[in-house]
Amino acid sequence: MKLYGYWRSSAAYRVRIALNLKDLAVEHISVHLVNNGGEQHRQAFKQLNPQALVPALIDANDQHHHCITQSMAIIEYLNEQYPRTPLLPQDAYSRAIVRSMAQILACEVHPLDNLRVLQYLVGEMDVTQDNKMRWYHHWIHQGFAALEALLQQHSGQYCFGDNVSLADLCLVPQVYNAKRFNVDLSAYPNIVRVDNACMQLPAFQQASPEMQPDAN
Amino acid sequence: MKLYGYWRSSAAYRVRIALNLKDLAVEHISVHLVNNGGEQHRQAFKQLNPQALVPALIDANDQHHHCITQSMAIIEYLNEQYPRTPLLPQDAYSRAIVRSMAQILACEVHPLDNLRVLQYLVGEMDVTQDNKMRWYHHWIHQGFAALEALLQQHSGQYCFGDNVSLADLCLVPQVYNAKRFNVDLSAYPNIVRVDNACMQLPAFQQASPEMQPDAN
Repeated sequence: MKLYGYWRSSAAYRVRIALNLKDLAVEHISVHLVNNGGEQHRQAFKQLNPQALVPALIDANDQHHHCITQSMAIIEYLNEQYPRTPLLPQDAYSRAIVRSMAQILACEVHPLDNLRVLQYLVGEMDVTQDNKMRWYHHWIHQGFAALEALLQQHSGQYCFGDNVSLADLCLVPQVYNAKRFNVDLSAYPNIVRVDNACMQLPAFQQASPEMQPDAN
Repeated sequence: MKLYGYWRSSAAYRVRIALNLKDLAVEHISVHLVNNGGEQHRQAFKQLNPQALVPALIDANDQHHHCITQSMAIIEYLNEQYPRTPLLPQDAYSRAIVRSMAQILACEVHPLDNLRVLQYLVGEMDVTQDNKMRWYHHWIHQGFAALEALLQQHSGQYCFGDNVSLADLCLVPQVYNAKRFNVDLSAYPNIVRVDNACMQLPAFQQASPEMQPDAN
C-alpha cells in the first residue's frame, strides 16, 4: 500500500491513523506542500490526483493499482476492505452520528482552515495576518462547539462510546492543528479528554506529524 | 420523516434528491437561513441541531426520533436503511470513487462558498464584493476542474457509469449554485452533460429549490 501524504496535512494524518489501527503496512511517500512552490502541483503528482491534494492511496491488493483520493473516501474504503478494528459502529443510527461528528470537522472546519485557504485569504483577498488568525479561530470554535455538544451526548472513552471510530480519526488531527494555532480549548472539556485518550494509543502516536520522516 | 431544510441550501437539496430517489414521504420544515437574522440560530432549532445548520433529519421509523445532521451522514444513513435505488455502487473501489467525487464538492467547494462563509468574508474580513465573487469563482473552478477529470474517466450517463449515485446528488446542487453566480461552465462539458441528464429525472426536478414551498 502506498500513501501519498505530508506530515502536517490533517487529512493525511486521519488516514495514517486508520492504516495503523488496521495494522496495514504502508509505504509513505512525502509530497511537500510548501517546498518548491508545493510539490502537489507537479505534473507527475497531478496525473495521479488531478486535485493536487494529499492524501492519495494506492492499495497494492487492488490489481489495477487504482488511486483513491479524499481522506473520508479512503477511510471508508479501508474500513470496508479491511474489517478488522471497525471504524464505524454496528447500527445505522450510530454510524450516522459518527459520520456526522466526522463531517463537522471534515466539511465545516478543516476546509476553511487549511493551508491553501489561509494562503489565498492573505495572498489574494488582502486579508491581514490578524484577520487571518481571527478567521482560523472563528471556524474552529464554531465546529468545536457543535462537536462538543454531540460528545456530551454520545462520548464514552472516545467520541462515540468506548470504541475508537472515524470521528476520533478526524478529531485528533484537528486538535493538533488547533493547538498549533494557540486556540483556547477550555470550553471543550470532552474534546480535550477524548483527544488525550486517543493519544494514549500507539496507532495515534505513530501517526502524529512529528513522527513522520518528512517532518521538519 | 421530517426534514428541516431551506430551499436554497445545497446540502438540504442533496438530501431532498435522496429522499425522492428512494420514494420516501417526508414533511419539509423550512428553517429560513436569511429572514429574522437566520432562523437556524433560534433556540428551539439549536436544541435539535447545536450546529445551527440545515439539513437535519428525523426518521419517523426510528422509535427514538433521533435527529441526524450533516447531509453526507444523512444520505449514507438513508442508503443503509432504505436500500431501494442504491446510491453507491456494489464494489468497494467504485464506492470510493463515488464518495471521492462527492467529497470534492462537499469538502472542497461547498464549505468555502456557502452563505455563512461569504457573509463572514464581507462582514468580518473586510473583503470587497468583487473579491468575494473572485473567491466564490476560484473555489468552484478548483473543484470542478478536479471533478471534470474524474468524470472523464468514470462517467457514463451519470457521474459514475449509468446509475445515479451520491456523486450526482452533490453535483446538481453545486451546478445550480454555480449558475446562480454566473460561473462559466464551458471548461466542464462532462459536468454540464451529467447535470442535464439528472435534471431529466423527476426526483431531481422535484427537489430543486424553486419547487420548494419556502422558495421566494
